[in-house]
Amino acid sequence: MLKPLGDRVIIEVLEAEEKTASGIVLPDSAQEKPQEGKVVAVGSGRVLDNGDTVALEVAEQDHIIFSKYSGTEVTYDGKDYLIVRESDILAVVKIES
Amino acid sequence: MLKPLGDRVIIEVLEAEEKTASGIVLPDSAQEKPQEGKVVAVGSGRVLDNGDTVALEVAEQDHIIFSKYSGTEVTYDGKDYLIVRESDILAVVKIES
Amino acid sequence: MLKPLGDRVIIEVLEAEEKTASGIVLPDSAQEKPQEGKVVAVGSGRVLDNGDTVALEVAEQDHIIFSKYSGTEVTYDGKDYLIVRESDILAVVKIES
Amino acid sequence: MLKPLGDRVIIEVLEAEEKTASGIVLPDSAQEKPQEGKVVAVGSGRVLDNGDTVALEVAEQDHIIFSKYSGTEVTYDGKDYLIVRESDILAVVKIES
Amino acid sequence: MLKPLGDRVIIEVLEAEEKTASGIVLPDSAQEKPQEGKVVAVGSGRVLDNGDTVALEVAEQDHIIFSKYSGTEVTYDGKDYLIVRESDILAVVKIES
Amino acid sequence: MLKPLGDRVIIEVLEAEEKTASGIVLPDSAQEKPQEGKVVAVGSGRVLDNGDTVALEVAEQDHIIFSKYSGTEVTYDGKDYLIVRESDILAVVKIES
Amino acid sequence: MLKPLGDRVIIEVLEAEEKTASGIVLPDSAQEKPQEGKVVAVGSGRVLDNGDTVALEVAEQDHIIFSKYSGTEVTYDGKDYLIVRESDILAVVKIES
Repeated sequence: MLKPLGDRVIIEVLEAEEKTASGIVLPDSAQEKPQEGKVVAVGSGRVLDNGDTVALEVAEQDHIIFSKYSGTEVTYDGKDYLIVRESDILAVVKIES
Repeated sequence: MLKPLGDRVIIEVLEAEEKTASGIVLPDSAQEKPQEGKVVAVGSGRVLDNGDTVALEVAEQDHIIFSKYSGTEVTYDGKDYLIVRESDILAVVKIES
Repeated sequence: MLKPLGDRVIIEVLEAEEKTASGIVLPDSAQEKPQEGKVVAVGSGRVLDNGDTVALEVAEQDHIIFSKYSGTEVTYDGKDYLIVRESDILAVVKIES
Repeated sequence: MLKPLGDRVIIEVLEAEEKTASGIVLPDSAQEKPQEGKVVAVGSGRVLDNGDTVALEVAEQDHIIFSKYSGTEVTYDGKDYLIVRESDILAVVKIES
Repeated sequence: MLKPLGDRVIIEVLEAEEKTASGIVLPDSAQEKPQEGKVVAVGSGRVLDNGDTVALEVAEQDHIIFSKYSGTEVTYDGKDYLIVRESDILAVVKIES
Repeated sequence: MLKPLGDRVIIEVLEAEEKTASGIVLPDSAQEKPQEGKVVAVGSGRVLDNGDTVALEVAEQDHIIFSKYSGTEVTYDGKDYLIVRESDILAVVKIES
Repeated sequence: MLKPLGDRVIIEVLEAEEKTASGIVLPDSAQEKPQEGKVVAVGSGRVLDNGDTVALEVAEQDHIIFSKYSGTEVTYDGKDYLIVRESDILAVVKIES
């Protein structure tokens, strides 16, 4: 299991096929296209200047949109993941009930 | 539904036709032209160095002017949106009563 | 009505003819020439790191000098305005009584 | 009257002839030559991160040395002034008694 | 023995052969490939602006992933080590039980 | 008399002949050679973010070593001085008793 | 005697011959090779934003590894020294007992 440090988040990138299910289609022409993913692990949080730690806003299993080209790729147990900072995550996709 | 993170705001960009209604006309010659939009979702706020969170000044349904070329385009449920940081928003258009 | 966000200020730029009245003449040769204007709206203030908001030093109707080339042009109800940050404002012109 | 904002200071630049009187001669070869001036107006001070305002160290009528090429030129009531930030002021010339 | 200062960490870099055992395979094509290592010594922590020291999140013997090309190589007692800052460490590899 | 502002220090640069007396010889080959000087005036100190002022570590008459090429030259009453920030001062030369 | 200011440290650089004794061999190929040295004097510490001073982690006589090309060379009483900031020091070499 990978445990990210600080304000880092480990993401399983969702492929284009899965995007249709969630209803999100990303434009081709955007210069800095965002990507969708599923959070698989979150760091313990960001340490503030006063020593307190702020928990991350995202949680495991969250379906998110993040800035493309951000983060570092890593393969673990045969699966590809991306390690990004929370500030690279733009929004959470919530299922309307 | 998209829930932006932190100090991010999701905007539905208003087209030129709609601008006439609000009475704003943007100059052609400006190098960094602002654009109009409607806020559709706001993040939970900016986390300060002391750990407190400051709520955003803009709210859903606000008619705003924001810096062009800022933010990231995303399409959700067939509609185009822009995800910007609140600092990219210049002013709110208030209806005079 | 336009309500600027944060430490932003909306300015009605004063033309050269009006400058004669206030007694200010700006040099031709200055590389970064300041400009005169009248404040028409001010933001709610700058949010400090401790969460407090500092009100702006300028107020509506103030006659000011600001750095040229700063800010973003916008036209509203047929009038041109400039949206600048308060830090782009150099001085207030006070009428000596 | 011009009232500078924040940590800005309005200076009446002293010409070379006046410098002889104060005993300061500035070298020709210095790459970033300082200049002499008289303070004619000071801003209300610098706002700290905790919201407090720190009054400026210089006061009206102070005879000062400041970094050349700093600030913005402005002409008011037929006189030339320079608006600089206090951090561009290097030293105060005190008359030895 | 080497004792790193502040938020620095001394790492024994793990070679590709050892990676197979931990199940991590790093992609060839990644521009900024992460690397695996074992923590052999940690600094006393990062000193905050209020004077407090925050202990590091990683501990001796931790199996970690860190940003390649970060840090400074050093050889001690015939063994090669890398001295990195904790912020260069992306994640800890935890053994699932 | 010149009174430097804030964390500035006025230095009388010591020439090479005087260096022999203090026992310091500066290498010819160093890219950024330090220089020796005597402190003739110090500012009132650096203003911290909380509004407090920290007095300077150096005092008048201190024999110091400072980074060459730092500061601004000024001539006062026929003598040459250098105005530097305290951060440009590397060390104080203390006479061993 | 030289007394460094603030967070500066004066180092006597250890030559390659002495390195063998401590068991550290530095690689030839490293782009930014660290160097070994002995601390001969430390500054009074780093001043924090709240006005407190944090004492340095290194002490006189410490055997240290520091980033090559950092600091300023100075010769005092016929001996060569280097003045660096504590942040340029990577680790302390401790004798295992």
